[in-house]
Amino acid sequence: MLVAQTSKLTTFVNPFIGTQNAGHTFPGATVPFGSVQLSPDTDTIPMLVNGQYQKDVYRYCAGYQYEDSTIVGFSHTHFSGTGHSDLGDILLMPTNGPIQWNPGTESHPEKGYRSTFHHEKERASPGYYSVFLEEPMVDVKLTTSERVGIHQYQFKQPKDNQVLLDLCHGIYNYSDKNVWCFVRLENDTLITGYRQTNGWARTRTVYFAISFSKPIQQYGFKNTKATAYNGFWRKFDVENNFPEAAGEGIKGVFSFGEEVELMIKVSLSSVSIDGALLNLTTECPHWDFDQYAKSAEAKWNESLNMIQAEFLTSEEKTTFYTSLYHSLLGPTLYMDVDGQYKGLDQRIHKANGFTNYTTFSLWDTYRAQHPFLNLMLPAMNADMIQSMLAHYDQSAHHMLPVWSHYANENWCMIGYHSVSVIADAMVKKNTGFDYQRAFEASVTTSNQRFYEGLGAYQDYQFVPEDLSGNSVSKTLEYSYDDWCISQMAKQLKSDSLFSVYQKRSEYYQHQFDSSIGFMRPRFSNGNFKKDFDVLSTHGQGFIEGNAWNYSLYVPQNPKNLISMMGGDKRFIAHLDSLFTMELPDRYFAETEDIMRDGIIGNYVHGNEPSHHVPYLYNFTSEPWKTQACTRMILPKQYKAKPDGLGGNDDCGQMSAWYLFTSLGFYPIAPGSPDYAITSPSVKHAILHFTDGKQLEIKVNKQSAKNMYLQSIHLNGVPVDKAFLTHSEITNGGVIEITMGPKPNKGLFQP
Amino acid sequence: MLVAQTSKLTTFVNPFIGTQNAGHTFPGATVPFGSVQLSPDTDTIPMLVNGQYQKDVYRYCAGYQYEDSTIVGFSHTHFSGTGHSDLGDILLMPTNGPIQWNPGTESHPEKGYRSTFHHEKERASPGYYSVFLEEPMVDVKLTTSERVGIHQYQFKQPKDNQVLLDLCHGIYNYSDKNVWCFVRLENDTLITGYRQTNGWARTRTVYFAISFSKPIQQYGFKNTKATAYNGFWRKFDVENNFPEAAGEGIKGVFSFGEEVELMIKVSLSSVSIDGALLNLTTECPHWDFDQYAKSAEAKWNESLNMIQAEFLTSEEKTTFYTSLYHSLLGPTLYMDVDGQYKGLDQRIHKANGFTNYTTFSLWDTYRAQHPFLNLMLPAMNADMIQSMLAHYDQSAHHMLPVWSHYANENWCMIGYHSVSVIADAMVKKNTGFDYQRAFEASVTTSNQRFYEGLGAYQDYQFVPEDLSGNSVSKTLEYSYDDWCISQMAKQLKSDSLFSVYQKRSEYYQHQFDSSIGFMRPRFSNGNFKKDFDVLSTHGQGFIEGNAWNYSLYVPQNPKNLISMMGGDKRFIAHLDSLFTMELPDRYFAETEDIMRDGIIGNYVHGNEPSHHVPYLYNFTSEPWKTQACTRMILPKQYKAKPDGLGGNDDCGQMSAWYLFTSLGFYPIAPGSPDYAITSPSVKHAILHFTDGKQLEIKVNKQSAKNMYLQSIHLNGVPVDKAFLTHSEITNGGVIEITMGPKPNKGLFQP
Repeated sequence: MLVAQTSKLTTFVNPFIGTQNAGHTFPGATVPFGSVQLSPDTDTIPMLVNGQYQKDVYRYCAGYQYEDSTIVGFSHTHFSGTGHSDLGDILLMPTNGPIQWNPGTESHPEKGYRSTFHHEKERASPGYYSVFLEEPMVDVKLTTSERVGIHQYQFKQPKDNQVLLDLCHGIYNYSDKNVWCFVRLENDTLITGYRQTNGWARTRTVYFAISFSKPIQQYGFKNTKATAYNGFWRKFDVENNFPEAAGEGIKGVFSFGEEVELMIKVSLSSVSIDGALLNLTTECPHWDFDQYAKSAEAKWNESLNMIQAEFLTSEEKTTFYTSLYHSLLGPTLYMDVDGQYKGLDQRIHKANGFTNYTTFSLWDTYRAQHPFLNLMLPAMNADMIQSMLAHYDQSAHHMLPVWSHYANENWCMIGYHSVSVIADAMVKKNTGFDYQRAFEASVTTSNQRFYEGLGAYQDYQFVPEDLSGNSVSKTLEYSYDDWCISQMAKQLKSDSLFSVYQKRSEYYQHQFDSSIGFMRPRFSNGNFKKDFDVLSTHGQGFIEGNAWNYSLYVPQNPKNLISMMGGDKRFIAHLDSLFTMELPDRYFAETEDIMRDGIIGNYVHGNEPSHHVPYLYNFTSEPWKTQACTRMILPKQYKAKPDGLGGNDDCGQMSAWYLFTSLGFYPIAPGSPDYAITSPSVKHAILHFTDGKQLEIKVNKQSAKNMYLQSIHLNGVPVDKAFLTHSEITNGGVIEITMGPKPNKGLFQP
Repeated sequence: MLVAQTSKLTTFVNPFIGTQNAGHTFPGATVPFGSVQLSPDTDTIPMLVNGQYQKDVYRYCAGYQYEDSTIVGFSHTHFSGTGHSDLGDILLMPTNGPIQWNPGTESHPEKGYRSTFHHEKERASPGYYSVFLEEPMVDVKLTTSERVGIHQYQFKQPKDNQVLLDLCHGIYNYSDKNVWCFVRLENDTLITGYRQTNGWARTRTVYFAISFSKPIQQYGFKNTKATAYNGFWRKFDVENNFPEAAGEGIKGVFSFGEEVELMIKVSLSSVSIDGALLNLTTECPHWDFDQYAKSAEAKWNESLNMIQAEFLTSEEKTTFYTSLYHSLLGPTLYMDVDGQYKGLDQRIHKANGFTNYTTFSLWDTYRAQHPFLNLMLPAMNADMIQSMLAHYDQSAHHMLPVWSHYANENWCMIGYHSVSVIADAMVKKNTGFDYQRAFEASVTTSNQRFYEGLGAYQDYQFVPEDLSGNSVSKTLEYSYDDWCISQMAKQLKSDSLFSVYQKRSEYYQHQFDSSIGFMRPRFSNGNFKKDFDVLSTHGQGFIEGNAWNYSLYVPQNPKNLISMMGGDKRFIAHLDSLFTMELPDRYFAETEDIMRDGIIGNYVHGNEPSHHVPYLYNFTSEPWKTQACTRMILPKQYKAKPDGLGGNDDCGQMSAWYLFTSLGFYPIAPGSPDYAITSPSVKHAILHFTDGKQLEIKVNKQSAKNMYLQSIHLNGVPVDKAFLTHSEITNGGVIEITMGPKPNKGLFQP
């Protein structure tokens, strides 16, 4: 029995990975699954200068771009890796000199409160971020607890030192999402209030409490947006030491004169100001910054040690642990310390018997992120399912979440992949939620008619393109989701519903045009679309993928897919071509959310629909090609540098793919207990499961060239199929693998 | 001992009194001090047509003008008698035919959802309102419980019958106060949501639950205001049977097809949707409209029977009971059935041990409305004081309310007259609140410096006009308020603070210019303002009054005022002139909030600062002039018809003046236990106090001509001063008065 020794794995995490270009990660401080992500924003909303938007706002989904030279300030909520933007709440910025109410621009930082900075004086590690702001001359250190952001400012000059609070600041595609702000000076060290926005979350309020370590000497609030008449604005000097302000565009400035040391604690709540105060006093009672930072680091070390892995290179190790770090950023905790949270119905609920989470990017995360959590943190994954069921209970549409965050359904992307997360947990015997209730919610969700061609899908057994766009992607994903529901029905011995959903899980067949060997859009009259471009992503019935990629989306039944596509050899040829063909630039230009190097041949790793594709060789006579393929993808798509991610990390999905793949197995069809085996890139790893069991992965003769599995033994018994079951992995023990430079073509052959 | 028999006094209430021109009352349904005032709005916000505002929005403070020919719909919250506007929440309107989302205009009602109506088919009585809407052909009946509005619609045609919900509708000076709306279809008979506004209440949210007696057959929500991008609005048919909507400008329509009978219950809460649902199920569990209407009427009859009064004419009786009705409309109940309410700090509070109220128009109501409640409903008045103290506890400014409504301080008018209400209750031995806590809140309030020249007042012993406008009014009212605090200090035996506030109560003397015999603005250099017009209301250092009226504002010490103004004879001459002089029209034009007939000579009864003035004769050698004067004012200023009020009813203050005066006594200086005696207009009255005691007022030889008191006996003992104390009144018994056509000049003489 190996004894787990906790090592300081935080040193192998580089939070800057993915912060350049399309990764859309943030470098700031947070704890695992923390509510607060306290991070520098280098730009956020689009700024219109001379009729031109100065920044491509899409790049600022996480608020930060590594190439930028200025920091606007530090805000408390950030998505990790999304392709759509929101959040960026409650910005603070230390300043001095004359008050500047606006951030200014990167090219003219002196015209606003932002500051230049250099990466040499910037540092990030799990739970910690620091930077030197050059204009105000301030050393900034940040850390967090679950619900509180903690700032430490060291001003280098004892003069006119201030902190600016910008409640207008936010991250979003459109420049103005503020609906309302309210702020009060409770006493000379405490500010409370809320910010209400209409962003990607349609209706959202963040309540806050801001506690300062030193007394505010002077202060002012300003409403920077026109508002309906309020007589009293004429009566009083409301911008100087007037202790309350409300309006659409509130900002504030707090002066600390010659004070040079200042700590600030910013607590958030979705419930109320009282909730924020309760979170503040419960989580952060003292003023010892280093202790908070140590506590955050300790939480990360404990989490990261769930997998102790060694690699050939330190770059690989950093990539692995940064992937693990990114996989543990979400879904995020979404409730006050007393369990209260604002629900989808905009009412206050209490999470009874579970921890409530938000930010479910399910079209992405059902693939590998939730299976990873289900494997390594099953109780937490069950709580996430309970959070989805609470969403269902609160849904006026009677649907499980599609893409939900902060008590809002934003309906992004397609499918109803909550059912995949549920089915996966059920077949893997995760007992942390009510199966019958989850099954009923899944069935009801799948029978809605208003949603994205789902009514037509039930009527036509496919989604007609004339009735609902991106129709093929929808049919394929609905079929997979229905297969997931069939697996629940099987578990629950509901024969009649098993039949219904088994049948629905085969509807993908109705999209296949055998005359060309591709999935192809059809119309409600049954005809296939005539003009059809199998390489194009736009207008061809697909979303974030073309027919070459998406035609392979039958994770629930690859064998039938292979048969439909002409059998083993023709299918292998399709896969081989996918990875090697030249995709003309004009097609790349259509591909969303990724950089040029997010594509390998015509295989788009930077988007999700093909994440299972490299593993499809395992269903053919040439399973060693999966091994070559994933060993090729790993270093190409994941690099230990700021621009190391070829596409959005998508709330941990890209990272979870890395984790599974580098460990040598992948859940290509969540809802099945099977993992497809590939060539691991680890030299050695121990997985510590939460029930105390552990799995050791010993890899002999690991090297960059030795990319092929020669043999694989589980607890001494040779593995003769290209798959491992969930229980084989979680029962623990030792997987011993020997690698070689050439395929062992006899391995996994019947 | 007289036995109280409850008579049907509701028949003597005409809710239309004051609905024409400046009374600003509403005719709709409500219960005593009810949270919900469900009333027709004939117009509300200004409509810009061809560059001209089509309606004078000031006329629509209560949403209704008697001369109008159309009704826009029925909204659930209304001020009674204010001179500034707000509320008008959650408008419903029965319609049929093609959906019209906008109200249209009075001149073109067919262009909107509004309808014409005629007064012949309109009826209003306490707790009940009905009208026939001509275009949709609907008989509408309305009643309420405390927190729920109840609608009954009888459609005359069984076709396309609908109910329109307009969450944009509201009452306000500016056309657009909506901040945000959220609405959900919970099931086919229940809608929930909230409306958030930035009106006179700066930041306010009304949560609602709307329950229908019949299932909604089809429905739609529409966002009529541009909003930040929300992708899903493109994905779904969000305007047809889509069960959730959020945005700045939400409206909804609910179709009931051929149903002709429909009941709707609309519950409100300041706390949450759950609060609204709790109020709904607690107060209105059944669907029997008549029972709700009977219950509302019964509450009114019980309340109105607190005073059983007989008059010479039925018009006088109607005027009296309508005044009593208007006096019992506010302050209004402001908490859910479980005691929760949103406080000034925008947090949820629970009223522990008291009932919480809102809408404190204190500059008006401290004069007679609160003294009236303190006399007749002392426990309720104590709860109102507790509500003020809760406001104080929640105030970032550490001030008692000035003019507060719905968890907002709107800072309207001047003074800190909460202290008057508190002092009056204390000197009259109202034990329903904590004296020490109330005293401390009063002292702290009076020592703020930011407020309306109050810092300068403390420094200069008057408010210099160059530092704060309307300076004389402020000095005079602060002096009176400080006298009130001195009376609290006396009660609490705080000698040092008694001295402080006694001294401050004399600061009014610093505004008196003995060279002209008027109060006069001074500058911070001590000089009086040179160009000074004693008749003008604007720019002369006064607000809602000129020097002729306001110079008499020393209610705390009329004797010293008389002495300052040159003694008994010169003072009497000043008063005589006030009531008889001709005020040129140009001066009237400057006078706010009243109609031409709100002025008698130069005495402005339609505004409040002179309400005590007719009683000042009691401090002179000619007290019988008070009697002639009030008997002259009563019929001139109060008539039993829609335009019967000469000025805003001001949340019951004008009505409370009527009640006291017609009963023959008036609290000219709240904070003193004394009431000034005048000639009653009642023939006979019994006041039923809440402790079971009662006071009978027997008036012999009462007639229009017999306006002078000949004799007055309290329980058989002659009254020899022109004043009665609070205990003399509340100890009960019989006041026997004999009237005559000429003054008994010996009465009340020393």
